[in-house]
Amino acid sequence: MKLRVGLIGAGRMGKVFAHTLAFNVSEVDLVAVADTDETTAREVAARYNVSASFTDYHQMFEKVKLDAVVITTPTATHLEVVRAAAAAGKHIFCEKPLAQTLQGCDEAIAAARDAGVKLMVGFMRRFDAAYMMAKQKIDEGVIGKPVMFKAVGRDPKRTSLEFARRENSGGLILDMGIHDFDLARWLMGSEVERVYSEGGCLVYPELETVGDIDNAVVNLKFFSGAVGNVDVSRNAVYGYDIRTEILGSEGGLMIGRMQMTDTLILTRQGVFHDTVPYFMERFGNAYAEEIRSFVTCILEDREPPVTGYDARAATAIGIAATMSLDEGRPVYVSEAG
Amino acid sequence: MKLRVGLIGAGRMGKVFAHTLAFNVSEVDLVAVADTDETTAREVAARYNVSASFTDYHQMFEKVKLDAVVITTPTATHLEVVRAAAAAGKHIFCEKPLAQTLQGCDEAIAAARDAGVKLMVGFMRRFDAAYMMAKQKIDEGVIGKPVMFKAVGRDPKRTSLEFARRENSGGLILDMGIHDFDLARWLMGSEVERVYSEGGCLVYPELETVGDIDNAVVNLKFFSGAVGNVDVSRNAVYGYDIRTEILGSEGGLMIGRMQMTDTLILTRQGVFHDTVPYFMERFGNAYAEEIRSFVTCILEDREPPVTGYDARAATAIGIAATMSLDEGRPVYVSEAG
Amino acid sequence: MKLRVGLIGAGRMGKVFAHTLAFNVSEVDLVAVADTDETTAREVAARYNVSASFTDYHQMFEKVKLDAVVITTPTATHLEVVRAAAAAGKHIFCEKPLAQTLQGCDEAIAAARDAGVKLMVGFMRRFDAAYMMAKQKIDEGVIGKPVMFKAVGRDPKRTSLEFARRENSGGLILDMGIHDFDLARWLMGSEVERVYSEGGCLVYPELETVGDIDNAVVNLKFFSGAVGNVDVSRNAVYGYDIRTEILGSEGGLMIGRMQMTDTLILTRQGVFHDTVPYFMERFGNAYAEEIRSFVTCILEDREPPVTGYDARAATAIGIAATMSLDEGRPVYVSEAG
Amino acid sequence: MKLRVGLIGAGRMGKVFAHTLAFNVSEVDLVAVADTDETTAREVAARYNVSASFTDYHQMFEKVKLDAVVITTPTATHLEVVRAAAAAGKHIFCEKPLAQTLQGCDEAIAAARDAGVKLMVGFMRRFDAAYMMAKQKIDEGVIGKPVMFKAVGRDPKRTSLEFARRENSGGLILDMGIHDFDLARWLMGSEVERVYSEGGCLVYPELETVGDIDNAVVNLKFFSGAVGNVDVSRNAVYGYDIRTEILGSEGGLMIGRMQMTDTLILTRQGVFHDTVPYFMERFGNAYAEEIRSFVTCILEDREPPVTGYDARAATAIGIAATMSLDEGRPVYVSEAG
Repeated sequence: MKLRVGLIGAGRMGKVFAHTLAFNVSEVDLVAVADTDETTAREVAARYNVSASFTDYHQMFEKVKLDAVVITTPTATHLEVVRAAAAAGKHIFCEKPLAQTLQGCDEAIAAARDAGVKLMVGFMRRFDAAYMMAKQKIDEGVIGKPVMFKAVGRDPKRTSLEFARRENSGGLILDMGIHDFDLARWLMGSEVERVYSEGGCLVYPELETVGDIDNAVVNLKFFSGAVGNVDVSRNAVYGYDIRTEILGSEGGLMIGRMQMTDTLILTRQGVFHDTVPYFMERFGNAYAEEIRSFVTCILEDREPPVTGYDARAATAIGIAATMSLDEGRPVYVSEAG
Repeated sequence: MKLRVGLIGAGRMGKVFAHTLAFNVSEVDLVAVADTDETTAREVAARYNVSASFTDYHQMFEKVKLDAVVITTPTATHLEVVRAAAAAGKHIFCEKPLAQTLQGCDEAIAAARDAGVKLMVGFMRRFDAAYMMAKQKIDEGVIGKPVMFKAVGRDPKRTSLEFARRENSGGLILDMGIHDFDLARWLMGSEVERVYSEGGCLVYPELETVGDIDNAVVNLKFFSGAVGNVDVSRNAVYGYDIRTEILGSEGGLMIGRMQMTDTLILTRQGVFHDTVPYFMERFGNAYAEEIRSFVTCILEDREPPVTGYDARAATAIGIAATMSLDEGRPVYVSEAG
Repeated sequence: MKLRVGLIGAGRMGKVFAHTLAFNVSEVDLVAVADTDETTAREVAARYNVSASFTDYHQMFEKVKLDAVVITTPTATHLEVVRAAAAAGKHIFCEKPLAQTLQGCDEAIAAARDAGVKLMVGFMRRFDAAYMMAKQKIDEGVIGKPVMFKAVGRDPKRTSLEFARRENSGGLILDMGIHDFDLARWLMGSEVERVYSEGGCLVYPELETVGDIDNAVVNLKFFSGAVGNVDVSRNAVYGYDIRTEILGSEGGLMIGRMQMTDTLILTRQGVFHDTVPYFMERFGNAYAEEIRSFVTCILEDREPPVTGYDARAATAIGIAATMSLDEGRPVYVSEAG
Repeated sequence: MKLRVGLIGAGRMGKVFAHTLAFNVSEVDLVAVADTDETTAREVAARYNVSASFTDYHQMFEKVKLDAVVITTPTATHLEVVRAAAAAGKHIFCEKPLAQTLQGCDEAIAAARDAGVKLMVGFMRRFDAAYMMAKQKIDEGVIGKPVMFKAVGRDPKRTSLEFARRENSGGLILDMGIHDFDLARWLMGSEVERVYSEGGCLVYPELETVGDIDNAVVNLKFFSGAVGNVDVSRNAVYGYDIRTEILGSEGGLMIGRMQMTDTLILTRQGVFHDTVPYFMERFGNAYAEEIRSFVTCILEDREPPVTGYDARAATAIGIAATMSLDEGRPVYVSEAG
């Protein structure tokens, strides 16, 4: 028996998940696609041989027998879709961020809990082979006690100004750092106690007009006593640059590299290689793996590995780090709400 | 309109191509699967939602409307399947090697030509991103005139003794080196004039009982005057190791690396990383790309980029190199027949 | 005519400089060695064919004709030796740190200025080929405007407890970070405005007994608006780990690597390589280059590239970062005095 | 007591050894320099505080008390200098090649043996840290039985035409390959039985006018059954490129890399790094280590690790490989004489 899944939101990320649901997860049937744009909904449905498409996801719940949904709508709508899906008794995979506010996260978590459905949130890096190996080595004790967490999270270009507005993206630190904050909790095995951020609008002055910045460094202090730092930037013009390090008492781990294609070009000017263009080239497989994990958790009735609570916790760090930037002081994560 | 494709041979490589045809090439419908083993044929068909499965591919030609076939049967049967498919008017993608003999290659080429169908042979490395970049840089003149070709082609373990028999595999040099001989012709832009091989059975003495060896080095002399060397081995116990270099008058290219997962493990004993286990981990994407290329060539009525003639030429080098090993002398490729 | 140089302090670093002065800088004659330990002074003098050795450096000033001195005594004595050397009219190269306090730095600077002698301080990293290339590329505009500075500075083991006392080492952040703070100012082309530190004693609890920690992260905010982070650790048990990155508006630079010997070992368990054991293996050449630079500056009567003011500025950042750790708040470097 | 050493030949390599003898080997006194060019002899002597300089090395033997000599004269004169030094009872370090002919090697070996003096030949790669680690790992059994040897030996530019004449250089294969042939014997633990070469004059047509080529590949067959390949080129315009691999039954080793300075430059066009310019940047330390080894062998009365016989054996391989190129057939090393 296959799991019947509906996709809500067929934009850029929605198409990624549609492909995965249709082709890469054998225990799943993608049976319906919903998008407020009718053409998009129809095209994506047609492309993946899905018979039902909707502009209103409530209709999808009524008309199609579904076990679960994958939510890839704009962030601002996540909460209402989660609520509706939970009310309809569907298991929920929601692309990150679950919500921009902790209250939103709490309400989503409560909705799923009250309805007795599973809620998983899309922190895909946890399903990347390099990060999974790192986690495994830490759990095996290879590096001893983790004492320092370092993360680089850099985009090759700035977002649209519209997206950069804090009410949309949550601001640079929350938008980009949330993945690193999630990794920090997961890999270090400790919650973050407090944060301190420095940042600025240094390369794209137009971001300032919408209240955003383009570079930041965020110090972390964990409850375990460990320390850390996350840097985020929108001007890694050389390529998408995601690297993470964990230093332990008995060793360390370094995750990530900046070469895409395994070809070196040797010239009189030196040796050259390319870089990773953007996130799909880096994490394409991880998106498929996380959906597989979601499906397995439903089929085996297990708790998903990335819960609403994880989403809330990473969001809280991001909000606290943004407060720190605004207020110029260290901020306890508990202050975020 | 989608291209209707049938798969002939549903073993290890057949399954790879079934997946690709079903999921990764949007212009294709995989509509039939044939395998002499009925269970295999049915299972693969079922897995990819293919309604028709056969134990006799002749029946498949009769009962299913097909535009093209993908042939992944045992090498010894390639020629007869190619002939049958050509006679049935189907375009043909045949997994390498096209045939173990030059006469076999010639007959396959003639069958396709006489029937007016396209014949493409599966040298997937040409469709790997790293090799494609290398080819492009050479064509752009970045390294000037290519003057030296170097290739490493090493498997992490030996084949079965049954496969190793020369009548099955063609022997180590032909079996493993054929990919490198194809790359040599393609990247150097010149045919190979003569070869000289040294080899031995050094690690797996049991291979000697079936007339095979486990390590060889093959010197190449190109008609352009360029020189080269290919090494092949079955005992790269550290991992699947495929590397290629081209030295030119103005620079060079190095293709390949031996790290699979982008994680470094730092311990008191040094820095460690993993390696590439085997060919699917290295060339998985390339298999999909070559099928896409085949489909595009049919749809656009263009000559496939890897023809029967290419298969014949690489086979000729491999046969000549094997003759050189047997006879202890440089052998002109033209001597291969 | 060669520059006549005397060495004051013939311990670990003194021996390094003795070797360099004797063998690697052709414009120099090492003519005297002073060390409070008579045996040490004699042995080092004998080893490098130096005729005069002293236990009291004042005597060295009286009895030997000297143009310049290299000071490698314990940090606590730097100021008095600098004063005496300045009073004696000798040009001064002083190993870092110039002094543990800003007042000490100021007095050393004043002493040299008043005496009209040159004062250079030993931040050897500026003379390492990799850092020099980075500086040159920044100056050429290759990475545009520098906007982020990242530094890793990790030792493979802890210092002695005696050295770790804050009155001796200045504490982890000042002791280890001073090199990174100097690089930060030099490479970013801006002074640091404020800092915020997190740290802890996580691996060597015995360090706590002398008031020190073993891991810290320090956020930097530059007057240019740029941001940065320096991490320091005493438990990089895998090896000496010094890496620096600068992100600019048009590109970036990464300096450093963790492999010492250019040999990869390929086994069934993966690929292994060694690491850099400690600072002499990494910066041996840089020590020689900085002395050459000092000598050239005297011979050509130019200002040394690393002045007492540079030493003061890096020290001020380290003191402010230590205050931040103690007080749990961002600290302006100007608060350091 | 220090070893009294005289240097014969103060050209490019002579200056390298003069520096090493003067500064980097504490058990040695460089006491005399001889060069047919009086100015050169005097300048080098003056630079390293050597009191005696000669234009005729016979005079040096008469007038200066010497324990050993380092011979860095032009290759064509090696034999006569070795004979004279042996006759004078001096231990001999002779820069490679010992002689261009096997007869020359034999006479040099006999001269040293008859005089009871040590004779060491300068294959400096054996004293490079990366190669020493490789040798150690092989001896420890880490890679099991060595079954394949691969070497890349490429210069960034062609030699002078005068040097390229076979009577001067011995031709490309002997001149460049001799280091690789020595490594082959040393690392594989087996003599080479036969060779087969392909080569051509592909980039510098002017080399043809003096009878030389610029690119070659040489297949090796060892008496152990192992196989190998050495490539040599004069047109690695991207940099000095020396790499070696050994494949064993239980693993492998890769030695060498092409990056000089540990700085990566990240730009919109990709990632760049520099390369190794030439042999002194790569093997500078190895030259010092080999002289230390020579000195230690004299002081401890041990056989040098690289003997005249080693020089003869590597020369024989080079001569056989050159015969193979000339005659277009595999050549047994025993045919070389």
